Amino acid sequence: MLNPSILEKLQQISGKDHVLTDKADLICYSYDATQRQFLPDVVVHPADADEISRIMQLANAEKIPVFPRGAGTGFTGGSVPVAGGIVLGLSRLDRILEIDEENLVATIEPGVVTEDFQKTVEKVGLFYPPDPASLKVSTMGGNVAECAGGPRCVKYGVTKDYIIGLEIVTPTGDIIKTGGPTMKGVVGYDLTKLICGSEGTLAIMTKIVVKLLPKPEAKKTMLVMFSSIDGAAQAVSAIIRGKIIPTTLEFLDARTLECVRNATDLDVPEAAQAVLLIEVDGDREFLDGQTRKISAIVQPLGVVETRIAETPEESEALWQVRRSISASLRQVNPDKYNEDICVPRSRVPDMIRKIEAIADKYNIPIVNYGHAGDGNIHVNIMVDNAVPGEQEKAEKAIVEVFEGTLELGGTMSGEHGVGIMKAPFLNMELQDNVIDYMKTIKKALDPNNILNPGKIFPSDVRAH
Amino acid sequence: MLNPSILEKLQQISGKDHVLTDKADLICYSYDATQRQFLPDVVVHPADADEISRIMQLANAEKIPVFPRGAGTGFTGGSVPVAGGIVLGLSRLDRILEIDEENLVATIEPGVVTEDFQKTVEKVGLFYPPDPASLKVSTMGGNVAECAGGPRCVKYGVTKDYIIGLEIVTPTGDIIKTGGPTMKGVVGYDLTKLICGSEGTLAIMTKIVVKLLPKPEAKKTMLVMFSSIDGAAQAVSAIIRGKIIPTTLEFLDARTLECVRNATDLDVPEAAQAVLLIEVDGDREFLDGQTRKISAIVQPLGVVETRIAETPEESEALWQVRRSISASLRQVNPDKYNEDICVPRSRVPDMIRKIEAIADKYNIPIVNYGHAGDGNIHVNIMVDNAVPGEQEKAEKAIVEVFEGTLELGGTMSGEHGVGIMKAPFLNMELQDNVIDYMKTIKKALDPNNILNPGKIFPSDVRAH
Repeated sequence: MLNPSILEKLQQISGKDHVLTDKADLICYSYDATQRQFLPDVVVHPADADEISRIMQLANAEKIPVFPRGAGTGFTGGSVPVAGGIVLGLSRLDRILEIDEENLVATIEPGVVTEDFQKTVEKVGLFYPPDPASLKVSTMGGNVAECAGGPRCVKYGVTKDYIIGLEIVTPTGDIIKTGGPTMKGVVGYDLTKLICGSEGTLAIMTKIVVKLLPKPEAKKTMLVMFSSIDGAAQAVSAIIRGKIIPTTLEFLDARTLECVRNATDLDVPEAAQAVLLIEVDGDREFLDGQTRKISAIVQPLGVVETRIAETPEESEALWQVRRSISASLRQVNPDKYNEDICVPRSRVPDMIRKIEAIADKYNIPIVNYGHAGDGNIHVNIMVDNAVPGEQEKAEKAIVEVFEGTLELGGTMSGEHGVGIMKAPFLNMELQDNVIDYMKTIKKALDPNNILNPGKIFPSDVRAH
Repeated sequence: MLNPSILEKLQQISGKDHVLTDKADLICYSYDATQRQFLPDVVVHPADADEISRIMQLANAEKIPVFPRGAGTGFTGGSVPVAGGIVLGLSRLDRILEIDEENLVATIEPGVVTEDFQKTVEKVGLFYPPDPASLKVSTMGGNVAECAGGPRCVKYGVTKDYIIGLEIVTPTGDIIKTGGPTMKGVVGYDLTKLICGSEGTLAIMTKIVVKLLPKPEAKKTMLVMFSSIDGAAQAVSAIIRGKIIPTTLEFLDARTLECVRNATDLDVPEAAQAVLLIEVDGDREFLDGQTRKISAIVQPLGVVETRIAETPEESEALWQVRRSISASLRQVNPDKYNEDICVPRSRVPDMIRKIEAIADKYNIPIVNYGHAGDGNIHVNIMVDNAVPGEQEKAEKAIVEVFEGTLELGGTMSGEHGVGIMKAPFLNMELQDNVIDYMKTIKKALDPNNILNPGKIFPSDVRAH
């Protein structure tokens, strides 16, 4: 419980209306998509960087942990208040401050919802590519903190590739600017990129400077069904070596397709053991040629069927196969562990085989789909936690999935981050001296370890 | 002078042949392209990360400064041994270790010459885009340390956009790995990007993991002459808004063109007050359409003449205008101060006008050219240092150029870095608390300040 004098100070800083302590309110800020729940002592919704600076100074003086929070859609617990203290909700910092159409740069606040931002820039012919699945709800601050990805990243890169400047409040309460609106800049260390993906442990963002692109004129979708995952993986490499970088190169493995067949009436032939959903974008006049070229490249690789959308409605129908996955999986088992490993593109089939062996060993359904273009696989371990022993089996399976990933030169997370969910496994991937190096940076910048403690680094987790 | 016992230890680590102390040898490692000279006490050429680790442990124990060095082509003194001590030459780490054609990833050592690396990957149909002017001599380690740019960056981005992993030796002698061969990865802080552009102050690179692209099939060059710099700048914005991102968008201002006219017999009409050299690349069949589209877009903006190359020879002829600059400038004055400011693309004409006013005020020729596509201007202040007072005038002019840059939202360096040349001006661009934040990171990772001291931060410069 917080000392009443601290509550009073928080009320003085942000106003009584923006400081919540009722249990019903606290519960709303106690979890994210991981469903791990930790109650904060208080939730504050500051108005601006100045208030955040004063809150951080107070928190430092009193050694109170502070947990910055966007929309709470994270998959690894990045925003959950594992040590109580203050949840710092950033929803009031929700303005798009400037869209510079001449220089293709926007300045926004962290609480802007990703899709709102995308739609706003698209209205003036511009384009912000990163498209995490949560984009209708998640905020740009959270996207930057976790370095969000999405299907379009194979062509366009991840969130950090678009963030060229920040205004941040440091753990000790300084308000500083990093980077700026220029396309190049090498004066001093690249703090912007250090903070992208640091999961809210190094700074609280208060402004984000984003690089934009001209919006592509058109896009075209095709769905290719393969008789094996190897054919699909070879197709991915062959397309890219054919000098075509599609906007998306999504794949569904055999077990995912089985779920879709069982749960929907979508037409997915039994012979299809892997599917690639491919989208290309650019000048309208070039797209037909691109899909024709892709068809020709993939044809020798065990293609069962190729469908090319000629209209937006047909395109939507092809996307249905991909969009039906979540609902289809729920019919297999009520609970799932969703990992987002990433391996070198060519190792996807090896990884799928490893996962199939793990699924067989533990007798758990594991279904895989994701972003084949960059080797980023969403591994869904389907269990019923109400069944005794299921959870333990799943946890063992996860460790083996990580082991397999690392054996293939991969990483435990392509886009979700470490948070609290992968922190216990951090030293499977990173050598101790790398973890020490990162902790040295954290400790230097947050000497009292009050900003989002308990995330990324396993030994930092403190009991509430 | 180094203690003889330390020399002996260095010889034990790297072998007598790789430890140089003759004055004639030391002189070779005492300067870079800035021509500022500082003699080291010793030059060591280690064979590998293990030797570097032992050298750093020794240097830490004895508090000896260490200056990592690639080819010494930097423009800001990044590699010069301002505090004596050890120059650590990385030329023996010069192997291309792996080119993974399936996953478009290469692993190389830092001493590989940039052009050699480019040619090697191009032989197998791959492409490493960053192209600093020094690429025939400069090494990949130096390119990463400074985050080198080049003409192709407007389309393809800068060095750091291609570096996805590193093996480094830390200032305290640990050998650690950052990032890896996957296209995505968000496990822990992005140390790779922190080290890119940190000018050799945070780590010594021993391996570099590079992301590659498929090599574009063809390219096409055009030269457009404008009656004003405003027309040229509007053309840059209009081309990009027209959904074409050329590979290069180089510009030459009126004073540069005057130098070229005076020094060469190239055909540059008097009416041309600004020139854009534009190159597009991609599928051969699309390039004619692209240059036609660009011609149509720029035509209303005061075009004096457009030349489009139909053959490689014609393309080479167009590039001659750009390539003749250095030799042409030398005829104006023997000495030059070469700054590489960067402003938001649309502010290039404002910046050129500011620079023209500064040139008039100090009565010094200042000629400008560079990468218009990303607002990165090479400002060449032409003086004769033998004339009393010229150098002082140039230094005052530089300060005013920086002031003007910052007023327009720009940065003092787009691609050359800070080094020793811009360190005295660092606090013009960065707030004190940003500099403190960076120094906190430096101090935490290099507690004895032995790795490349005197660079970036003004107060760190120590007398020899």
